[in-house]
Amino acid sequence: MGMTLAEKILAKASGKKEVSPGDIVMAKIETAMVHDITGPLTVNTLKKEGIEKVWDNEKIVILFDHQVPADSINAAENHILMRKFVKEQNIKHFYDIREGVCHQVLPEKGHVVPGTVLVGADSHTCTHGAFGAFATGIGSTDMAAVFATGELWFKVPETLYFNITGELKPYVMSKDVILHIIGKVGADGATYKACQFGGETVKNMSISSRMTMTNMAIEMGGKTGLIEPDEKTIQYVKNAMKKHGTERTFEIIKADEDAEYEEVFEIEVNDLEPMIACPHNVDNVKAVREVAGTPIDQVFIGSCTNGRLEDLRIAIEIIEKHGGISDDIRVVVTPASREVMLKAMEEGIIQKFYKYECVVTNPSCSACMGALYGILGPGEVGVATSNRNFRGREGSLDSEVYLVSPATAAACAVKGEITDPRDL
Amino acid sequence: MGMTLAEKILAKASGKKEVSPGDIVMAKIETAMVHDITGPLTVNTLKKEGIEKVWDNEKIVILFDHQVPADSINAAENHILMRKFVKEQNIKHFYDIREGVCHQVLPEKGHVVPGTVLVGADSHTCTHGAFGAFATGIGSTDMAAVFATGELWFKVPETLYFNITGELKPYVMSKDVILHIIGKVGADGATYKACQFGGETVKNMSISSRMTMTNMAIEMGGKTGLIEPDEKTIQYVKNAMKKHGTERTFEIIKADEDAEYEEVFEIEVNDLEPMIACPHNVDNVKAVREVAGTPIDQVFIGSCTNGRLEDLRIAIEIIEKHGGISDDIRVVVTPASREVMLKAMEEGIIQKFYKYECVVTNPSCSACMGALYGILGPGEVGVATSNRNFRGREGSLDSEVYLVSPATAAACAVKGEITDPRDL
Repeated sequence: MGMTLAEKILAKASGKKEVSPGDIVMAKIETAMVHDITGPLTVNTLKKEGIEKVWDNEKIVILFDHQVPADSINAAENHILMRKFVKEQNIKHFYDIREGVCHQVLPEKGHVVPGTVLVGADSHTCTHGAFGAFATGIGSTDMAAVFATGELWFKVPETLYFNITGELKPYVMSKDVILHIIGKVGADGATYKACQFGGETVKNMSISSRMTMTNMAIEMGGKTGLIEPDEKTIQYVKNAMKKHGTERTFEIIKADEDAEYEEVFEIEVNDLEPMIACPHNVDNVKAVREVAGTPIDQVFIGSCTNGRLEDLRIAIEIIEKHGGISDDIRVVVTPASREVMLKAMEEGIIQKFYKYECVVTNPSCSACMGALYGILGPGEVGVATSNRNFRGREGSLDSEVYLVSPATAAACAVKGEITDPRDL
Repeated sequence: MGMTLAEKILAKASGKKEVSPGDIVMAKIETAMVHDITGPLTVNTLKKEGIEKVWDNEKIVILFDHQVPADSINAAENHILMRKFVKEQNIKHFYDIREGVCHQVLPEKGHVVPGTVLVGADSHTCTHGAFGAFATGIGSTDMAAVFATGELWFKVPETLYFNITGELKPYVMSKDVILHIIGKVGADGATYKACQFGGETVKNMSISSRMTMTNMAIEMGGKTGLIEPDEKTIQYVKNAMKKHGTERTFEIIKADEDAEYEEVFEIEVNDLEPMIACPHNVDNVKAVREVAGTPIDQVFIGSCTNGRLEDLRIAIEIIEKHGGISDDIRVVVTPASREVMLKAMEEGIIQKFYKYECVVTNPSCSACMGALYGILGPGEVGVATSNRNFRGREGSLDSEVYLVSPATAAACAVKGEITDPRDL
């Protein structure tokens, strides 16, 4: 019996010829990441347990993205604690307040290694499955064990396979595909499953679009999201490693042809419309047209889900084409990383966002977490390209968040109400 | 006996032929400004007093700059309250979260009218004296009286005249001049005085450099800072009004030749060095070289004092010339306004700040207030181009802030310690 992609990676990482769903394996970790919110918990746990040295100072990545620049004395204290740890342990890959969101920066800097296990103390670590890695979010105390030993146990998950076929229509994006899937499967429909996305539509997707898909695997409960690596993946990873001096050898692992999937979903997207996750659950998914006209207060374009160059490009294209944004709302744009910001300035995109009266912040987690800036007040309605719309996620418990693609977000910005980009 | 500039403006505004220091006058207000922190207090006072209509919906400017985009539910609530007030009262000049710091945006948009009285519910409203207005910060409840009646009483202040002569050496800026003056006069040396700056050095200064001078009049206790308008002023004001459709007729008022000043300070700047205000008082001023080598954690370049185009230009010139910033520190750059941001992008300045790993935020009050972002933690040392270094101003009570010019700030960023820009 063949193995799925997730099974093959876990087998390799745990030195086994074969694993099956339900097996408990102890896997070697290739990359372990903490950020400014989760890192201090990990460091304090290590100290409490008397661990003096991390297992490998080159495989740990520490990055500040949630509260950057420090937005409170407490955040500044967390940063101080982590900078001290970085120096003490001589952590080689440390990114201070300047680089952007961890899930964007890790692949950009060549820290995502196809065919290996990557853990991050952040729930959207599954993003990195877009590169054919087994990537998953873990708790900060589990991370302390990883920092100490370089290993972590996993129960081998079943794999759900999403076979996505057809061609996306203009203004329909990978975000619409994943929202559609989450709407079908439900917020707990893939609990502890590996969610593998494949098929011609995924093959034709850019790396950025693929990352949007895997990013949201956790929103249906998935242990991870995965996409088989192809030439695009290899090129991206090699370029990133070369550019940043982070070269590691890696093996391209693909699923066996006779792999056994718990379930195969056939998703045909030729007629897929722009989709929207309505308050207060990510699986409360409708066609945008079903809620068109709903008044809004803020549009947020950014996050590890949709803050990349192609996202900013389509958003500004729509805003420019329609002469700017509505006077009655505000638009907060947050490029996912410094690299995205630099490229977007090269293309004149950021300049146009400013021209059209959007607020462009420094690369960060921004409004997604409801704690840095872009907070919604009581009664306010936000449209966001991010990944969660739980009650209070972007601020007040009496606010509402709708999740959409960057194209739909831009259409909403132009109109000042929920709008299908095809209807502008 | 002739009148000073401040006296002549107050006389005109109160319909009197002549006023003398100590007189109490009731002056007509030409422009009244509140921002997102002070505005809600004003609005709530109006409501409490049962005032239903503001005196003039075209002379009030409401602007959000302190907590933008909203950084807490409380901030979001303040914004909601103020937006509602703007609609109810049909306030013509309202700038939401996108435009930048009030003291930069007001002149840019043509709201500073030479020869008139401008009040703002913010202590650095004195900035606008750079345009030959009598501009001063008032409390939020006083502002409620202004919103209701369009008038406010003033005790006519004595005027101190600073006659500034000589040519500033390279890397010595108007910020160094005003720090030098505050060091001489002391933090309460000009309490309730009008501080008029004149002389050939001021005549040769750009409008931006002049604004840095008047901005800090309050730091020696001044009721206002003033500079006589000249051709540069008239051009700036006319262009701004034309560009933004805010034309008002105005009269250029200058001091009488036989005006009586309480004191005249002769300030010769040929040999002036880069200056620095050391913790924890703005008048604790030394030459930068006296404290050179002091280790630092953060450099902040921005604020209503020094966040303008010429400030960003000199800072990036120095950073670029020396190949970037120190690895051991972080640099937060905040252009003072959207207009400054757009121009700085046109010139490629923002692109370079990002290239050299500085964090560029959206236009706002930023780190200056110690509440939005760029907060210092316990034991940290910041260098800032802003105007106040009181204990805790930028965060922890156990942090320290040194105030400098943008040239010195950039030198500190390059070296990672306090550095005179001439010594790089």
